[in-house]
Amino acid sequence: MEVKKRILTGDRPTGQLHIGHYFGSLQSRAKLQDEYEEYIEIANVQALTDNFDNPGKVRENIEELLCDYYAAGIDFNKATIFIQSEVPAIHEIFIYLANFATVQQIQHNPTIKTEMAQKGMEVSTPLGFFIYPIHQAADILCVNADLVPVGKDQAPMIEDTRVLARKFNSTYKTDILHQPQALFGVEANVPGIDGNAKMGKSLNNGIYLADTEEELRKKVFKVYTDPARIHATDPGKIEGNVAFTYLDLFDKDIEEVEAMKERYRNGTIKDVEVKERLFEVMNEFLTPIRERRREAEGMKEELMKKALEGSVKVAGIATGVAGQMKEAMKLKF
Amino acid sequence: MEVKKRILTGDRPTGQLHIGHYFGSLQSRAKLQDEYEEYIEIANVQALTDNFDNPGKVRENIEELLCDYYAAGIDFNKATIFIQSEVPAIHEIFIYLANFATVQQIQHNPTIKTEMAQKGMEVSTPLGFFIYPIHQAADILCVNADLVPVGKDQAPMIEDTRVLARKFNSTYKTDILHQPQALFGVEANVPGIDGNAKMGKSLNNGIYLADTEEELRKKVFKVYTDPARIHATDPGKIEGNVAFTYLDLFDKDIEEVEAMKERYRNGTIKDVEVKERLFEVMNEFLTPIRERRREAEGMKEELMKKALEGSVKVAGIATGVAGQMKEAMKLKF
Repeated sequence: MEVKKRILTGDRPTGQLHIGHYFGSLQSRAKLQDEYEEYIEIANVQALTDNFDNPGKVRENIEELLCDYYAAGIDFNKATIFIQSEVPAIHEIFIYLANFATVQQIQHNPTIKTEMAQKGMEVSTPLGFFIYPIHQAADILCVNADLVPVGKDQAPMIEDTRVLARKFNSTYKTDILHQPQALFGVEANVPGIDGNAKMGKSLNNGIYLADTEEELRKKVFKVYTDPARIHATDPGKIEGNVAFTYLDLFDKDIEEVEAMKERYRNGTIKDVEVKERLFEVMNEFLTPIRERRREAEGMKEELMKKALEGSVKVAGIATGVAGQMKEAMKLKF
Repeated sequence: MEVKKRILTGDRPTGQLHIGHYFGSLQSRAKLQDEYEEYIEIANVQALTDNFDNPGKVRENIEELLCDYYAAGIDFNKATIFIQSEVPAIHEIFIYLANFATVQQIQHNPTIKTEMAQKGMEVSTPLGFFIYPIHQAADILCVNADLVPVGKDQAPMIEDTRVLARKFNSTYKTDILHQPQALFGVEANVPGIDGNAKMGKSLNNGIYLADTEEELRKKVFKVYTDPARIHATDPGKIEGNVAFTYLDLFDKDIEEVEAMKERYRNGTIKDVEVKERLFEVMNEFLTPIRERRREAEGMKEELMKKALEGSVKVAGIATGVAGQMKEAMKLKF
């Protein structure tokens, strides 16, 4: 029997998932679950670093996340979904790794730098936030992950994890920590409906898996197109036109999309016609997802039970890894 | 029945204990164990932050520490001795506290600053070292300690722990974290035999509880006195004269010590006479401790068993505290 490679992926439970998440990760997770031994972490402890004063929100979002997973076709019997706070060995592994990371290395981490600037944390940086790159390495190492699906911009994070694992292994003359590899997928460009490159709750520009047909229609008709085009007879731009970016993603009839683009450039199609078509294909795509999500709403207890079972499984693996680390560090009695 | 207050104290297992430790903490621990519910932590995980590449040393030093405790009169049936690495809930509590500490606050911590300078860590600061003030707060909070015996210079560390506890409690509208208080004892001044204000292994100027009578004699005769005094008839200085500092600590016959000081100042006593007397009283004081230590050497297994039992007890308390914290943070399922 061939041993499947292990994949670790996950989310912070900070809100419902949108189509950006779907094309960015959910869709591929639903595929990867057949080929790999897939672990999906709900990083609720890390979510608290940004939301420590609003724990109720983090808690509620776990259930939303489970529903989104189910809706996106993640099979709770194939993938192992687990909740970070149920795996305290992650915190222990973090402490053991902390001797192999430096404060300066985190300070120079581009992601940390950007986030600190965005969140206005330069003068007062919560330690919980600051240590998260190393805590994330503990997430990855705690299940002996072989592969971590990431975007190109997250590649350095995987490299840092590999370095930590190598340093630990070489210091204690062991090979217990697996060096994970980044798994790069197709990076879908899913801008917000307002044309912002990123879709997000705080930007109020997202299309969510949980959106009703009515909500979807409203949002589609608000989608950012070519603001310079006043009349349907004006030639329009396709670049940066979110309606066409979405059509490229959702419309399977590529020839039709190309024909619409041509008519748009020539000023022989109304915006409303493009949007009607966009609504049609998006709704067709999202309807089964929405229906599965509604089904999931009625199964919350069952899905949570599965996640807690997954957590017990991962806690077992992680405690094993922490134990091996302790053995190597002569901390076992 | 009156409930005894809880005391937390402890050591990093980085070497054998000397008379500085004895007068600084061990002696008072042996007294406090009757009046209080005393917990003594062997901080082996924290010891690794400085010695991560030499885990064998940390491991061996645990047994030495246990022997020193026994030698100093700590009763393993009264005090609860525990090993940090056996209480992983401390690491979990650390993570929960980390949201209430900031990087800048640690950077401005005077102890951290001094240690960073001493250890040449300004350019490259291991994260494991950097986070230890918060990890130490987790040590204290994990047993709901009421009191922590410290020197005056460590008072800010206790205050920081109180602040963390308060912030956690007020954020989650709870009172689960106890705010510990500092317990200041008599601060004994025990310089090294070379006159250095501090006694330490790296300075090679210590008198250890494990020293034989022969070693003690050799060290006493090397004790720093008044370097300007060449002949026994020269008037000598008492200030900074380690022989007299030690006599003040060990000689119960205060009048005799005063008489010797007078003769020393007048140049009517030989250094060797002072040192003979010093050896006599130190040896009298240290002989029962040395004998108990030899006894402990033969009981290592038993002492370790006690420490592991203590660890199980503390792990139970700490897991309870971590559980209450999780409850407050809505992380319980």
